[in-house]
Amino acid sequence: MNNIQSLAIKLFGNNQACTCGGDHVVCLKCEVCRADKVDMTYNPEAGVASIIDATVLKATATQEEVKSLCAMANEHKTASVCINSHFISLIKASLLPEVKSCTVINFPLGAGSVTAIAQEASAVLAAGVDEVDMVQNISAMLSLDYDAAYSSINETARLCISKGALLKVILETCYLSEEQIIISCLISKKAGADFVKTSTGFGTAGATPEHIALMRSVVGPKLGVKASGGVRTKEQAEAMIAAGANRIGASSVSALL
Amino acid sequence: MNNIQSLAIKLFGNNQACTCGGDHVVCLKCEVCRADKVDMTYNPEAGVASIIDATVLKATATQEEVKSLCAMANEHKTASVCINSHFISLIKASLLPEVKSCTVINFPLGAGSVTAIAQEASAVLAAGVDEVDMVQNISAMLSLDYDAAYSSINETARLCISKGALLKVILETCYLSEEQIIISCLISKKAGADFVKTSTGFGTAGATPEHIALMRSVVGPKLGVKASGGVRTKEQAEAMIAAGANRIGASSVSALL
Repeated sequence: MNNIQSLAIKLFGNNQACTCGGDHVVCLKCEVCRADKVDMTYNPEAGVASIIDATVLKATATQEEVKSLCAMANEHKTASVCINSHFISLIKASLLPEVKSCTVINFPLGAGSVTAIAQEASAVLAAGVDEVDMVQNISAMLSLDYDAAYSSINETARLCISKGALLKVILETCYLSEEQIIISCLISKKAGADFVKTSTGFGTAGATPEHIALMRSVVGPKLGVKASGGVRTKEQAEAMIAAGANRIGASSVSALL
Repeated sequence: MNNIQSLAIKLFGNNQACTCGGDHVVCLKCEVCRADKVDMTYNPEAGVASIIDATVLKATATQEEVKSLCAMANEHKTASVCINSHFISLIKASLLPEVKSCTVINFPLGAGSVTAIAQEASAVLAAGVDEVDMVQNISAMLSLDYDAAYSSINETARLCISKGALLKVILETCYLSEEQIIISCLISKKAGADFVKTSTGFGTAGATPEHIALMRSVVGPKLGVKASGGVRTKEQAEAMIAAGANRIGASSVSALL
């Protein structure tokens, strides 16, 4: 029995075999079963631009910077533009219909209460964002408080599902052991996330191909895996894709193409 | 006419003389007029411990660390313990009645939408915190969008006032010019804040005595001024107090005493 499977059994019991293809093997009884859904993996024919979340999240971002990012995203037809929620109305007014709007919540420290996160999620969903990138509760994960870690994701997932919005859960892998990354992926999947994502860009390190490969092996082909934090070159982007990423967060789109 | 007064007139018009004692001189028509209220300045007889917000806000804080912080705060009778909202219930169960509970919102990037901030504020106030430290909208300040900067503070101030909670507005001075610090103080005061505060601790620099002195001169004696970020020694704390601080955020309480 591999480590992923044994952790899955320890957390969620020895249920019937899962058919969605992850190395967890046992069924997690997920909020959304994806066994019969299409794979969320990279399609080379669509090209790298189509999987980039063009991102600016720094505290000092100005309206002009966000407008420039939107122009770049429109030109290359990126997957989305990802900004802090102050800029939601600006990007929704600036983006072509095929470029999605994305914002972050519980970001970047991941330490909001379940209610605070849910309220923040409600606010950004009411503003009409297509995608929500939330940071998991890192403190809860490190304190072995898996119920709190699960609840914050599950509450947000239910809100996102009700609005048809995509939910990506940021693990902040730089603070986690390999085992904690596996547990975070299992909890995110069970709780109803659409994607697991490596990093906020504000931690001590960003994405690595090794972490991407591990995350992909846990969640299988039916969830997305996003590499973010420090992905700045074409070579880095290709390494993340080869490891299993089907979405990449980056501030400099043209450098990746 | 000094620079503070001229900026106040430019922003809010040449109103009647203000009697609350700040160098802005003209009346700002504040959400809460404090002209007749007691001064919010340091009382040497109460001692330094009484003005410390014992703080841990890092992403990796564990339950054990927060419990230790509460024990230290109880021992020294600090002003408050300041944590991320995930830990509100833990500190409320751990603190003596005289030590206040404090949390942060819109933290640390300061770039939430007005609605997202208000919803987050509602959630933490419903959980019963005594004090709320919010980051001002730095992006709005840098983009000269003063209406957005004002609205996010004013909405939160109204919620705090309705619950009898104290509101501190974090300017994140490391990203601001002297003029922007003055404008941020004027907007915070007008919007109904109880305190202006220098830093999140996650920016490029923390509090300086020069910024504290400037902030105190703008808001006068009727608002509080909190020094935070990088205050780690007794000498630094004394310098902040001498410059006008009446609250200090610090992770290591004993080092300051």
